[in-house]
Amino acid sequence: MTDHLPFSKIPYGGDWNPEQWERPVWDEDVNLFEQAGIDLLSVNIFAWTALQPAEDTYEFARLDEVLALLESRGMRACLGTSTAAIPAWMATQYPDVMRVDEQGRQHRFGGRHNACPNSPAYRRLAPALAGQLARRYAGRDVVALWHVSNEFGGACYCPHCERAFRVWLRERYGTLAALNHAWNAAFWSQTITAWEEIVAPNELSVQGGERTTAVQGLTLDYQRFMSDALLGAYRLEADAIRAEIPNAVITTNLMGTYRPLDYRAWALHLDVIAWDSYPSPQDTPAAVAMRHTLMRSLKGGQPFMLMEQTPSQQNWQAYNALKRPGVMRLQSWQAVAHGADAVMFFQMRRSVGACEKFHGAVMEHHGRTDTRVFREVAQLGAELKALEDVTLGARTPARVAVWFDWPAWWAVENSSGPTAALHYLKEVTALYAAFHAQGYAVDLVGPDSDLDGYGVVASTLLYLLPAGAAQKITAFVEGGGVFLGGLMTGVADESDRVFPGGPPGPLRDLLGVWVEEVDALPPGEMNELVMQGDLSGTFGCTLLFEQLRVEDAEVLATYGQDFYAGTPVLTRRRAGKGQAWKLGSSVDAAGLRVLTRALCDEAGVSPLVPDLPDGVEVTRREGEGGSFLFLLNHTPEERQVVVPGLRGRDLLSGEAMGESVALPPRGVRLVREEVGA
Amino acid sequence: MTDHLPFSKIPYGGDWNPEQWERPVWDEDVNLFEQAGIDLLSVNIFAWTALQPAEDTYEFARLDEVLALLESRGMRACLGTSTAAIPAWMATQYPDVMRVDEQGRQHRFGGRHNACPNSPAYRRLAPALAGQLARRYAGRDVVALWHVSNEFGGACYCPHCERAFRVWLRERYGTLAALNHAWNAAFWSQTITAWEEIVAPNELSVQGGERTTAVQGLTLDYQRFMSDALLGAYRLEADAIRAEIPNAVITTNLMGTYRPLDYRAWALHLDVIAWDSYPSPQDTPAAVAMRHTLMRSLKGGQPFMLMEQTPSQQNWQAYNALKRPGVMRLQSWQAVAHGADAVMFFQMRRSVGACEKFHGAVMEHHGRTDTRVFREVAQLGAELKALEDVTLGARTPARVAVWFDWPAWWAVENSSGPTAALHYLKEVTALYAAFHAQGYAVDLVGPDSDLDGYGVVASTLLYLLPAGAAQKITAFVEGGGVFLGGLMTGVADESDRVFPGGPPGPLRDLLGVWVEEVDALPPGEMNELVMQGDLSGTFGCTLLFEQLRVEDAEVLATYGQDFYAGTPVLTRRRAGKGQAWKLGSSVDAAGLRVLTRALCDEAGVSPLVPDLPDGVEVTRREGEGGSFLFLLNHTPEERQVVVPGLRGRDLLSGEAMGESVALPPRGVRLVREEVGA
Amino acid sequence: MTDHLPFSKIPYGGDWNPEQWERPVWDEDVNLFEQAGIDLLSVNIFAWTALQPAEDTYEFARLDEVLALLESRGMRACLGTSTAAIPAWMATQYPDVMRVDEQGRQHRFGGRHNACPNSPAYRRLAPALAGQLARRYAGRDVVALWHVSNEFGGACYCPHCERAFRVWLRERYGTLAALNHAWNAAFWSQTITAWEEIVAPNELSVQGGERTTAVQGLTLDYQRFMSDALLGAYRLEADAIRAEIPNAVITTNLMGTYRPLDYRAWALHLDVIAWDSYPSPQDTPAAVAMRHTLMRSLKGGQPFMLMEQTPSQQNWQAYNALKRPGVMRLQSWQAVAHGADAVMFFQMRRSVGACEKFHGAVMEHHGRTDTRVFREVAQLGAELKALEDVTLGARTPARVAVWFDWPAWWAVENSSGPTAALHYLKEVTALYAAFHAQGYAVDLVGPDSDLDGYGVVASTLLYLLPAGAAQKITAFVEGGGVFLGGLMTGVADESDRVFPGGPPGPLRDLLGVWVEEVDALPPGEMNELVMQGDLSGTFGCTLLFEQLRVEDAEVLATYGQDFYAGTPVLTRRRAGKGQAWKLGSSVDAAGLRVLTRALCDEAGVSPLVPDLPDGVEVTRREGEGGSFLFLLNHTPEERQVVVPGLRGRDLLSGEAMGESVALPPRGVRLVREEVGA
Repeated sequence: MTDHLPFSKIPYGGDWNPEQWERPVWDEDVNLFEQAGIDLLSVNIFAWTALQPAEDTYEFARLDEVLALLESRGMRACLGTSTAAIPAWMATQYPDVMRVDEQGRQHRFGGRHNACPNSPAYRRLAPALAGQLARRYAGRDVVALWHVSNEFGGACYCPHCERAFRVWLRERYGTLAALNHAWNAAFWSQTITAWEEIVAPNELSVQGGERTTAVQGLTLDYQRFMSDALLGAYRLEADAIRAEIPNAVITTNLMGTYRPLDYRAWALHLDVIAWDSYPSPQDTPAAVAMRHTLMRSLKGGQPFMLMEQTPSQQNWQAYNALKRPGVMRLQSWQAVAHGADAVMFFQMRRSVGACEKFHGAVMEHHGRTDTRVFREVAQLGAELKALEDVTLGARTPARVAVWFDWPAWWAVENSSGPTAALHYLKEVTALYAAFHAQGYAVDLVGPDSDLDGYGVVASTLLYLLPAGAAQKITAFVEGGGVFLGGLMTGVADESDRVFPGGPPGPLRDLLGVWVEEVDALPPGEMNELVMQGDLSGTFGCTLLFEQLRVEDAEVLATYGQDFYAGTPVLTRRRAGKGQAWKLGSSVDAAGLRVLTRALCDEAGVSPLVPDLPDGVEVTRREGEGGSFLFLLNHTPEERQVVVPGLRGRDLLSGEAMGESVALPPRGVRLVREEVGA
Repeated sequence: MTDHLPFSKIPYGGDWNPEQWERPVWDEDVNLFEQAGIDLLSVNIFAWTALQPAEDTYEFARLDEVLALLESRGMRACLGTSTAAIPAWMATQYPDVMRVDEQGRQHRFGGRHNACPNSPAYRRLAPALAGQLARRYAGRDVVALWHVSNEFGGACYCPHCERAFRVWLRERYGTLAALNHAWNAAFWSQTITAWEEIVAPNELSVQGGERTTAVQGLTLDYQRFMSDALLGAYRLEADAIRAEIPNAVITTNLMGTYRPLDYRAWALHLDVIAWDSYPSPQDTPAAVAMRHTLMRSLKGGQPFMLMEQTPSQQNWQAYNALKRPGVMRLQSWQAVAHGADAVMFFQMRRSVGACEKFHGAVMEHHGRTDTRVFREVAQLGAELKALEDVTLGARTPARVAVWFDWPAWWAVENSSGPTAALHYLKEVTALYAAFHAQGYAVDLVGPDSDLDGYGVVASTLLYLLPAGAAQKITAFVEGGGVFLGGLMTGVADESDRVFPGGPPGPLRDLLGVWVEEVDALPPGEMNELVMQGDLSGTFGCTLLFEQLRVEDAEVLATYGQDFYAGTPVLTRRRAGKGQAWKLGSSVDAAGLRVLTRALCDEAGVSPLVPDLPDGVEVTRREGEGGSFLFLLNHTPEERQVVVPGLRGRDLLSGEAMGESVALPPRGVRLVREEVGA
Repeated sequence: MTDHLPFSKIPYGGDWNPEQWERPVWDEDVNLFEQAGIDLLSVNIFAWTALQPAEDTYEFARLDEVLALLESRGMRACLGTSTAAIPAWMATQYPDVMRVDEQGRQHRFGGRHNACPNSPAYRRLAPALAGQLARRYAGRDVVALWHVSNEFGGACYCPHCERAFRVWLRERYGTLAALNHAWNAAFWSQTITAWEEIVAPNELSVQGGERTTAVQGLTLDYQRFMSDALLGAYRLEADAIRAEIPNAVITTNLMGTYRPLDYRAWALHLDVIAWDSYPSPQDTPAAVAMRHTLMRSLKGGQPFMLMEQTPSQQNWQAYNALKRPGVMRLQSWQAVAHGADAVMFFQMRRSVGACEKFHGAVMEHHGRTDTRVFREVAQLGAELKALEDVTLGARTPARVAVWFDWPAWWAVENSSGPTAALHYLKEVTALYAAFHAQGYAVDLVGPDSDLDGYGVVASTLLYLLPAGAAQKITAFVEGGGVFLGGLMTGVADESDRVFPGGPPGPLRDLLGVWVEEVDALPPGEMNELVMQGDLSGTFGCTLLFEQLRVEDAEVLATYGQDFYAGTPVLTRRRAGKGQAWKLGSSVDAAGLRVLTRALCDEAGVSPLVPDLPDGVEVTRREGEGGSFLFLLNHTPEERQVVVPGLRGRDLLSGEAMGESVALPPRGVRLVREEVGA
């Protein structure tokens, strides 16, 4: 497995389901693929019953034919293992293969993503099928990479899972004493006196709903366990493929900021990151950018695949607006700008029935090409072909890092109090967006990331501090970095036990403050963050209001109102060669921009473009093919951007570019920068 | 069974539950019935346990006495079979008689409408009771008609139903290949490889909630099956009665626009349509009118029974406003105006306990007659008596038809995308209301209706086109009719498989347009429908915005905004002697009025009254007794209506009527039109 | 057991959970208790597993040590029995000990308050543990009182409960005929023909949700039964303690206006009332006052214990605002003002993990005392110590009584119609608040209360009138009292059977009116109450609008709008030496103040302070130590109160007080009134 994907241009294509169609349609399809510049097809994603109509029968003839057809046209396959939806016969034969849900209900056949990852039948039959496929298609160049199952997710609470959870806990804790300590189980007499007493946390036991549990430590461990269990199911299949094809490129399609799975743990077992981007019409470009950034960050900046996006509309949003003309192209280039080395769609042709029949596709149920969508797809195909391989493998360097950590996410949202309005993603996205809006290149990091090379590491809701994280952050600051600890920094250890000294726990010395109390007011009740000294301005803050007690820090801002008016809300401590800032409330976007700019100024980090107009996004990729500046206009109006010193050529239009760049409405510039410019 | 009900005047009465009261109260009741002109009582609706206190014991003495009492006063009975609520002993003895719900939970005793229609015990014991009743009361004139069970509805998902569903599917499809094709089961590998693998679609299998399913074809078939299964239960009882009384008039009380049951299929097995009208305080008169129209249309215009309405207030709305003075009378005459030949209430006397103790009644728990409600009931009783038989059997001719189809309703609301805001009833009601507000006589038609004689057939959400429907519509147009295909016309076949050529599917040639894409925006986001040519004006449209591609049609209106501004939203194609119009968005009420008037003008269809004031409703019934013009004022102010050429007598007030008719607040005129006027 | 608690000052303290901490922390804790004036600790609340790690093993060493430590410092214990959360081994060994919920789901281990009160294992093991504790600690003065379990509540629907319910019903009704009559079971054929047919009312039987049932009588009886069943569990433990310690003071912590438990029935079995006060930030001071009043009224005015309150913030509200500076002190004195003889907190030290780790505590997880919260707690501790015993045992006399009755609450909210917007607590609180705002001393009474000595008895939603209640009220009026029957007075008997003569049922003669109909409009739709005669003004009314028919009463106010404009909404009948008023709608706060003042004027009842400023609360306690006037300022501004004739000393500040009393922001005056003043 290599860093690069096995392609000589950005592969272009998406999910294709010939098993839903008669053979003549296949031929029509591949002709249209050619017209649209499509060269990579995800196939065999949901065909388990077709491949294995009974436990002892495999039938590969159709898949043989599909692959032969692609091969004959010089196209390649991202080959699915088809295990994300089990056959009906499997549910009938092994009823315990179906999941038990959060409400404790044993499910029956129907739908997808419904197999228990710990059920013996699934753990035997899924890798068996993957192995059969690998044996059959080993050595076939048409198979560019392997796509295990599909969009792993959800959770199960069945007896198999319960037993596996006890084993997992025994491995984690060794003794019940350690487990009871981690869960603070003496509280409400939740003490476990035998491993068999441990119960999966659903609505029949400790859960009062998704975000309500009686025992945070138990729920947090089950979240870890279930992420591991699903990863285990992935690994069984990947191992079965690897056993047949040692150098196979194997992945599965992730889902961005998907809460249930700790993708950092998953990334270690994927050869390449691939993910499905389905922004809702309400999502800002910054939110989408953050998801790309997160996916890119999972494997230390290695380029990733945009595995799915809709060419036009979705079907599962409440109101499925069409992507406006140019938006699909803009979002495709946005993915590339953030590190994508593949652009793919769900789906090639709309299915005629069942629940995705209104999901957008490159082609409607009919095969007409005189449609807006097909035209846009074909135009992008031509652009990608013309670009050739110049951007492949290029990295997207950044000197700003924002903290993003699944266990912290889980723990923050498992907790009862201080406010039900706390949403991890919303707070982290707001912080990311403040950097993004000002043209800073940003990475996302977590407890295991290497912080060397960053000028700024900014966080909010760094609630959960695993062992070593505080030391790493302290070393970063002492080495010259600028660190921001935001709301609820350093509250609990990795078992969600509150640090006895109070927040910010092990970061108290570094930050020079501690938090005496936290006020929580209904959303919409605002206070003010009044900047002091160098920084100036007054900004709104809301949600939570930490009462900071300064031990050794400068006060940079104070509250403007309430009984804590005049007390600190933003502080800074200089430590070693760096600085440690602490923010005690949820600050509005304007305030976050001022704050993030100040952090970057202190760290000597410059934006890619100094005065970025609203709605324009900028990234830079650097690789063997050169240095590429991406400028993306997310607005329906023209924008003018001044990029000091820019000299180069827009690889999309072929135009020469100078310092002043005109961006058409929803337009994109991909400028190969000239050396010495 | 005849077209006419066996009555010599409009029967008047309602549900009477003597089994809840001591005998002296019965005598008081019948005295009051006499005072109020009440002559038809629905009895024995919920008395199964009383009639059959144990499986092998029947006790009819009380019912004998009830019928004798009615007989002695010259009143008659609508005799219930009492099977809508099973006895407690039956639930204990046969636990499988209770339903399994959408969440997969086996229920236990309590409430009503809770027997599984496929459970052997219910299918044996319910018709047995009906047969006993029929045998006992055969030949008794006091029994005017038979009332099987009560308000059939709901659904069951138990193993009995599952088995019956498999049989039903086998009859429908013959082979699994046909079934898999209909359901497009290759999608997500939902393919069925043995009949036993088929699972009822509830939250344990494919349903994610009422309007969310993974397999639309399966869910749609289960909706059909469950409607059939409940009809099957009705038929078992009706057959048992018929076996004893070949000429019995048998029915059950329907519920208007009740989604779960396809009443068109039911109507074939009912001798007369009877239904329960419970408008909420928010319902417009047009919405109520549409329900009456629908019920009348079920048996081709045959007069129906208003089987239940509340004389005052309901108890199960959130806020149960009293019917304002005069409203009960107005709504009663509205029913007659639309074809009712019976006016009945739920209920005669309020029960003193359990969940309907706050439901309105002719008499309170006490038997006082000096109440507003009793006075209004008695006044109406006098009016009905004075009217005698003149309107009985009269028809309500119409030259406009609006499409209403249960499977289309189910399918539209089963689908995932393009918008969650799509409500079949709301769209169809808006279309009906546009005709209604302008005084057009309207019928409701479906795929099996005869379209001959209509000038206009208008539809919206004619989403599902069963085999033959397109041909029928095309023939209608070619023969001179004017057809409107509204939003989402011709999307899918009767299995909810999308027509491969895209909407409007088999109506594409007729309409001369096809739909390339459908934009969906949140409710409240508006576009404009800008009329072109003959029609003029600009109207709001919302929800969905079809991108129409014209092949052979005139453009009558275009969108006013967004990237599709200037593209067609309303088109017309002349075909044969008629016209086929297509509308691509959800248009506001003003726009719908202009549109519907244009359709009628083109078809040469005139309203009953040309310039109908707001809030006034007009219908005409024609029969052996003459031609009757009903004018109903739904407002609390006086209204003046000009009816060109009118000459006749108001049968309610006895006043002579000319062209200018004064309507008191909430007033009614029932004008027998003079021949030659 | 005596009327006084065994203390020589107001005991001060709260829940302390040393089982969650290492021994060194205990010593730190007790030092801090001393600093804060804390002398009573609730211990052993949740330690069942620690005390009994297996069914046959008890381990009391740690508890011995805890009690010895308290004893050594002169502190005392409120000793818990630890049975509110069962051990994990018990759930594993006896799965039927876990409850079945409203949805019919058998629960498994986790959380608290989850043991079925009718399960044999719980009924055997919980009292066994209580007995063990009592035997071990009998005669130990350190144990000031016994605290059985914790916050009894919730409900179970398991087979054990179902069987116990049948026994309970058989005792209540004797025969099925009586039961069927009480439930009006002939309705919908719900008749029970064998005791075994009776099913617990949950979502699998008659409940369609918490406030929706098909059979009100059944649901109401289950509510009574479950309250009794939980009381039965309490009594088993209390009996086990009493068997060892005949003079033990035994209680449990109630929860104020907690709907599921009829605390009046409970109070008979508690030696002292203790309750947990957790006002939400939205609660008005009047709402909190009403809860204290209710708790005090349970045992005829005997002083009670404030058993729990948070010193700072809660964790289970949506948004857990900090108590503002001074508010904890103010609320503590408010409790004392209404009759509390103890002031206690939950909790001493925050737990480091599980679901209450963000609940406020006297001390954070760390043990710092330089916090706002600790300072405020210590200041209050000093005040309580300085007060000594002067207020202990003092009563809080009142001449106004407001009706509060759990069965009425249940019945009103079980009923379907006339409005879903009817909330018992909201209506009763509004009535209480009208008296409270004007400085009247108020008690809360129910059907079993002695009404002698009250001048005014006011009610709303006195929906359910048990046998004898009407006679008692009539005697009260005839003896000179002034009675107000509000909305929905006298609708149903104790089985929720509507009185056949209509409301106000047996109060009709007394009130001289009856209710013909009740209009129900959506919240926000207003009518007007237009005062006539002596009273003047026009006030808003909403929700329900009773149509009163006057038989023998004066009309004091009429409706201002709608078709019943000008008809009565407020009436008065003079009867014997007193008066009976009837109000037919939900009147706004201003109207309620005018009305309640008029009632008091008629009864010759004076407020404690005549012109009480907004936001100021006044109470008086009288006992052996003198007469004490409490003045509490609930606003953040200074207030000046004129108390005619006042002469005394503020025991908190030591200042002499005259007629004009200055109240600092959130300030409290506890004035010992001089005799003859």
